[in-house]
Amino acid sequence: MSSATAVRRLKLLTRTIGTGTRIGNMKHHVTIIGSGNWGSAIAKIVAENTKANPDVFHEEVKMWVFEEQYQLSPSHPRYDRSKHSGSQNLTSIINGLHENPKYLPGVALPANLFATPSLPDAVSEASILIFNVPHQFVSNICRQINGSCLPYARAISCIKGVDVSPDGISLFSDTIGRKLGIYCGALSGANIASEVAAEKFSETTIAYAPPEGPTEDFPEGLTPVPEELPAVDHALFKTLFHRPYFHVRVVSDVAGVSLGGALKNIVALAAGFVDGLEWGDNAKAAVMRVGLLEMRKFGKMFFAQSCKSATFTEESCGVADLITSCNGGRNHKCAMLSVRTGKSIETVEGEELNGQKLQGTITAREVNVYLRNKGLEDEFPLFTAVCRILNGEANVESLPQLIETD
Amino acid sequence: MSSATAVRRLKLLTRTIGTGTRIGNMKHHVTIIGSGNWGSAIAKIVAENTKANPDVFHEEVKMWVFEEQYQLSPSHPRYDRSKHSGSQNLTSIINGLHENPKYLPGVALPANLFATPSLPDAVSEASILIFNVPHQFVSNICRQINGSCLPYARAISCIKGVDVSPDGISLFSDTIGRKLGIYCGALSGANIASEVAAEKFSETTIAYAPPEGPTEDFPEGLTPVPEELPAVDHALFKTLFHRPYFHVRVVSDVAGVSLGGALKNIVALAAGFVDGLEWGDNAKAAVMRVGLLEMRKFGKMFFAQSCKSATFTEESCGVADLITSCNGGRNHKCAMLSVRTGKSIETVEGEELNGQKLQGTITAREVNVYLRNKGLEDEFPLFTAVCRILNGEANVESLPQLIETD
Repeated sequence: MSSATAVRRLKLLTRTIGTGTRIGNMKHHVTIIGSGNWGSAIAKIVAENTKANPDVFHEEVKMWVFEEQYQLSPSHPRYDRSKHSGSQNLTSIINGLHENPKYLPGVALPANLFATPSLPDAVSEASILIFNVPHQFVSNICRQINGSCLPYARAISCIKGVDVSPDGISLFSDTIGRKLGIYCGALSGANIASEVAAEKFSETTIAYAPPEGPTEDFPEGLTPVPEELPAVDHALFKTLFHRPYFHVRVVSDVAGVSLGGALKNIVALAAGFVDGLEWGDNAKAAVMRVGLLEMRKFGKMFFAQSCKSATFTEESCGVADLITSCNGGRNHKCAMLSVRTGKSIETVEGEELNGQKLQGTITAREVNVYLRNKGLEDEFPLFTAVCRILNGEANVESLPQLIETD
Repeated sequence: MSSATAVRRLKLLTRTIGTGTRIGNMKHHVTIIGSGNWGSAIAKIVAENTKANPDVFHEEVKMWVFEEQYQLSPSHPRYDRSKHSGSQNLTSIINGLHENPKYLPGVALPANLFATPSLPDAVSEASILIFNVPHQFVSNICRQINGSCLPYARAISCIKGVDVSPDGISLFSDTIGRKLGIYCGALSGANIASEVAAEKFSETTIAYAPPEGPTEDFPEGLTPVPEELPAVDHALFKTLFHRPYFHVRVVSDVAGVSLGGALKNIVALAAGFVDGLEWGDNAKAAVMRVGLLEMRKFGKMFFAQSCKSATFTEESCGVADLITSCNGGRNHKCAMLSVRTGKSIETVEGEELNGQKLQGTITAREVNVYLRNKGLEDEFPLFTAVCRILNGEANVESLPQLIETD
């Protein structure tokens, strides 16, 4: 245990036991909803930390897995013909191997992490829920969970991005919270899942700011966390997520944390265009800087109540995630290849992504419709330029002129 | 002319002529001191703008060149045996070819830019002086200029970095100003000279904030700019430096602009170490984010009167220059190769840089001595870790632990 970790645990113990505010000795049950590569990587981190902090958390962590039939490859190092010769439930394989060979192959998962195919089983005891599923499944999963989860549960959404429609922008954390009647914060950062899973160093940002009184979504206020449980606060989430290789900063700006993960993809397209022209490092850095400030302006304009400047310019979910996405992300890559080859980005997407969709082009167009409806396109010249370039209405060479301001 | 440029010119004309504050019709003479690759690139920009703004500036721009004998290569496209068969003064070649074949080969310089080997001749008429020389020559050049320049001249230093000694940090802009008895601002940004010279898009930051009353350096106050001249202010510097391919933002934080260009090199070493370990994009972005905040903390701690947070997190001289340096700069490269090969960084420096010195290692050690003298090493864990790694007192693998904070 590092000294910083020791200090944090001591503080937590002092607060939860020493000050007498914690009456009983209940501990938090933690559940992960989702088991893709990012879901499995986060589940690994969380299970490592529940084991390391047995005074605060039950060691056992459940991970809900969308059940499917899976045939382990005979080339897998622990393939055993007597067990693995046919297809099996993916949950059985995960629990037998302590590995998710389909979505996070080659990474050992902690023995205290248990896969379950049942949503009610996964959530029924959990006072802390971590959502990490593809965004298109959020509504359906919440429908299946509703009524099964504890009324005082608290959640964190690790789902990247936001839901943009012509009328408005909704955060997945808000959607989850509203549908389940519980509060949900957000986690986002410069977190390529495979690197996190390999315990390569990274940072993340967690946002958590439950309302104190009644709100529109919670007219009677949130159901309080029982006093017998350790308080659910910034320190608790740092204890649950921080690892020597995964540094956590906790803030209160849920909208900013969520927006960063969506809007950075628009900027990554711009950076890819510039790299496609081989304009060099100055130009790329300039486009990233302009984009970062437009991300912040967007947040402060449309989430004025909560968005903080620093979330974008200082946190992992802002500037660092932007840097990662402009260095090696798929939006950057496809935009670059599109300029280099003269093919449309949709063509490049089809050739490069194996059926997956670029998030950046979707977000760029959705954000543009939203801004146009409000008559605010000119306030976001880079976002607008990216959309115009995608639509063939402007050429990449004109980017400096399009973002030139007085 | 772009519409933004037109609006700016109109504003300038309105201010300088329309409002009646400008009495006569004097115009600014502009001189560049220095003709290396960055000096020549900046001279090109300035000469383009004096020509484009004849109501504010004399078209002719002088560029002081350290005179040397130069033999034009017979492979040069405009080599003429009758003129170029022997060595000639570099100034004659520059003025004959409108190119600086030694320091910025292949780039056409404007015909209204004139090279001169004489410092007194270069500065005697100039109301605006642009300094762009290697930092080790600043004192000597100022000594030669002193007494020749106009008392009301204003200057901008394009010299990267700051002068760190165990006792304190001094800005080259302050040194120039003090030695000449005139005010000097600063220019810095994500500006690789060869890319700027090739008119590839980039941005820069100019800081200009002359004191209004008496100061320690100017006990009788600055000599005012004659009212017959256009006011020397943020708008004027934008007019003098902004180009369609070189976007300028003008701020008032001279210390922040200067510090960015020095401290980023320490962070670039850290990013290079991480890339040497192949820790991936997450880790690199994390180190850059932590470094950016230490750069800002350093500025605010030691230049509390002037340093603004935004200079570091929002301007080209801060976050954008950092991105450029961590993507392709020599500090990053040598640090990466040092980790990959197991050689000391001094060995790599000797092998890779052809006799040039890494700025980052010098700055990292100077800054460390300064912080240690103040007992503040722990307040800057990344800066301190980089110095310890350079000195062989810590290994790169421990970087996450060294920068872990509670």
